[in-house]
Amino acid sequence: MIEDLRAIVGPAGLLIGADIGPRYLNTRGRGTAGRPLCVVRPGTPAEVSRVMAACHARNQTVVAQGGMTGLVGGGAPRDGDVILSTERLTKIEALDRDGLTLMAEAGVVLQTAQEFCADAGLELPLDLGARGSATLGGVISTNAGGVRVIRHGMMRDNVLGLEAVLADGTVLSSMNRMLKNNAGYDLKQLFIGSEGTLGVVTRAVIRLKPRPKAIVTAFTASRSVADVASFLRHLQTEMGAELGSFEVMWPEYDAFVRARCPALKPPFAPNCGFTVLSEFLCGSAGDAEPRVEATLGGALKQGLIDNAVIAKNERERAAFWTVREGAGEGMRTLLPYFVYDVSMPIAAMESFGDRVRADIATTYPNSTVLVLGHMGDGNLHVVAAVGSGAAADHRAVDDIVYGIIRDLDGSVSAEHGIGVEKRDYLGWSRTPAEVAVMHTLKAALDPKNLLNPGKVL
Amino acid sequence: MIEDLRAIVGPAGLLIGADIGPRYLNTRGRGTAGRPLCVVRPGTPAEVSRVMAACHARNQTVVAQGGMTGLVGGGAPRDGDVILSTERLTKIEALDRDGLTLMAEAGVVLQTAQEFCADAGLELPLDLGARGSATLGGVISTNAGGVRVIRHGMMRDNVLGLEAVLADGTVLSSMNRMLKNNAGYDLKQLFIGSEGTLGVVTRAVIRLKPRPKAIVTAFTASRSVADVASFLRHLQTEMGAELGSFEVMWPEYDAFVRARCPALKPPFAPNCGFTVLSEFLCGSAGDAEPRVEATLGGALKQGLIDNAVIAKNERERAAFWTVREGAGEGMRTLLPYFVYDVSMPIAAMESFGDRVRADIATTYPNSTVLVLGHMGDGNLHVVAAVGSGAAADHRAVDDIVYGIIRDLDGSVSAEHGIGVEKRDYLGWSRTPAEVAVMHTLKAALDPKNLLNPGKVL
Repeated sequence: MIEDLRAIVGPAGLLIGADIGPRYLNTRGRGTAGRPLCVVRPGTPAEVSRVMAACHARNQTVVAQGGMTGLVGGGAPRDGDVILSTERLTKIEALDRDGLTLMAEAGVVLQTAQEFCADAGLELPLDLGARGSATLGGVISTNAGGVRVIRHGMMRDNVLGLEAVLADGTVLSSMNRMLKNNAGYDLKQLFIGSEGTLGVVTRAVIRLKPRPKAIVTAFTASRSVADVASFLRHLQTEMGAELGSFEVMWPEYDAFVRARCPALKPPFAPNCGFTVLSEFLCGSAGDAEPRVEATLGGALKQGLIDNAVIAKNERERAAFWTVREGAGEGMRTLLPYFVYDVSMPIAAMESFGDRVRADIATTYPNSTVLVLGHMGDGNLHVVAAVGSGAAADHRAVDDIVYGIIRDLDGSVSAEHGIGVEKRDYLGWSRTPAEVAVMHTLKAALDPKNLLNPGKVL
Repeated sequence: MIEDLRAIVGPAGLLIGADIGPRYLNTRGRGTAGRPLCVVRPGTPAEVSRVMAACHARNQTVVAQGGMTGLVGGGAPRDGDVILSTERLTKIEALDRDGLTLMAEAGVVLQTAQEFCADAGLELPLDLGARGSATLGGVISTNAGGVRVIRHGMMRDNVLGLEAVLADGTVLSSMNRMLKNNAGYDLKQLFIGSEGTLGVVTRAVIRLKPRPKAIVTAFTASRSVADVASFLRHLQTEMGAELGSFEVMWPEYDAFVRARCPALKPPFAPNCGFTVLSEFLCGSAGDAEPRVEATLGGALKQGLIDNAVIAKNERERAAFWTVREGAGEGMRTLLPYFVYDVSMPIAAMESFGDRVRADIATTYPNSTVLVLGHMGDGNLHVVAAVGSGAAADHRAVDDIVYGIIRDLDGSVSAEHGIGVEKRDYLGWSRTPAEVAVMHTLKAALDPKNLLNPGKVL
């Protein structure tokens, strides 16, 4: 097998034994990486096809890897897997200024693609914290979300065309560049969000947007989740499509930041309630800030918020975002902890926040539970430190969190995917009929079960 | 078979013989409707499931029908088919003002749903000419487009959740209400745009948007397609997400309207070039018109347009739209004619417009060829009257139009779908590997080939 692969990608394209560095063995949450047979790094989509055909001929399992920033172990190898890394598929093929599209290979790093588009005065619609290492193929395979979903949608909504290599090496090229194409089934959907279990994404056409003329960022505080929800509706009504982000933080998160993250400077005094970072991507520059000010003024007058501040410059804007995204250092003081990524109807969020804290505290009285997330998308993240990282406690907390989600008709995965981490809970959000159809698709497209086996299903 | 179905839906739910009115036998383009076995009209999604199970047990083919406004014969019955009409599935189940979602059954008429949402101060993102009879199930099954795609995307982009009944009667309920849900494969994508060949859509959750504060509608004229494309880019840069429609009409269309549609009043003098109807959905009311005016002023100064007028009131706005959408009466004077719905990269549109007129004229010197469409979506419509409606001429003109599309890397169907009408041309836009995977999906989900057989594939 190894010799077959080396013949395709050349000596530099193949790693074995001690040359397989930690980047390829990265795993998150429960479980550890197995010992892969080798790492194969094709230099072209055609080589990906030949690699897959060779593996198919020998019934060899394959796990595709992008930037390895996933949080559910979707890219972690099992014993004996071939790792197919897209790290050498880094060609940016074309940018169409009229059609507003970017065509690129799967291994291009998200931030590289973002900057390439920005240089042309355009915006790549997806943004998330891991932008510096996540790849286009990875964010497509996992249908990544991030901090612009309320404005631009998930990655799925921004992929116009896609090329994937099937389990048997067939190149399925659907590199559509138009917003509208109803010529038969939309096959690219199969490979978006299926975490490399149905095919290996090799190239894509991504929809671009004009860059906003002005970005206005606000930090506000409200007394209750209900007020935050009303504030969100107010912003959606008054600012329409210009609302680009709406990040809510439960009070415990604010207290945690003050206690554990000395570098972060929340703009309000302690005990200010539920804080929200909202950002507006404005079509016109001159009146952007006055319009946001007037909209926030209306919310103050209606009592939806108690306090509001607008970032006066890029430095303040960055400081606001650091409160939301930069708590990693402080988080480490909580280790071990478990992380959750769930979604639910906005109307259920107050109940979720209350129950998740109360129910975990019942079992683990000295736990720390932080709730925050992208309210406009129905997506909350939970960090739960219960004083133990043991598998049994992980399972117990999972049962609590996902049990509430099941009650509230939510999803056990909003944007992180299923991977290995949430596989046992897939049935808590999807019906037996749905899971059966997933197996039908998997069997139809990968009858030998060679592509990322043991993930998702 | 008929008795089985009558037992499920009751006598009022079943039509046979002369009671099967023309609504069920409607067909467009080439081909005629066959003689269906019966029409079954379930009153609930559960009845749809029982109907499908009964048909599955007897290997009975089924064609699902919505409002029968499709243009490619996707809903036309073949001899012996059971017609499953969703016309009695008309329940609007819930509107969530926080979550911005509408939950409804498949038979709800688009306009009914639009008005229900408007009453709540919200907007259903899809709009198209057939709004008065098209159903939600129909616009989902065909992934309808329309005049707001540049702003809100296709129907696919606005379906959050969906319930479909499979060929064997299995109810596949994926009624997700969140923007983010990455718990396993996104099964609903299978049923969006597959024209009833993989399942029957029974219910859906549709994403809503806040209503715009102001709508500004402009009519402009440019000298060339290149200028129109530059004008589009100018609007996208200056107005961003507020650009809601961008409808371009080739010069022959303007001449046709003046000659054959006395009720339509184009705002400019004859021979004004390429005309564009653009519409802006503005987040703020007060400054909307001045901003559009300034943006159009910039385009005039740069020479991208020669002439511009903004609708002063709703009556003028309606008059502008009538020029674009209301030519049906005049079209009838061209009968027989063939209609095309194709997409291509915007950069290819000038070439397409030139070639389609020249190539048809070479074979049919006295033909009338009108080109118009949604430039921002890459979508053009062509009306070709060549003095014959004969099948051989239809085929010859198809070959010309789709041949150009194949050369330009476009799609033989932008928004109308494939149905029967374009089935022979699917391979002109999709690769053999793509068509093979479509057959794989069809065989996996409908192994007996009972669902709308002979359509799409």
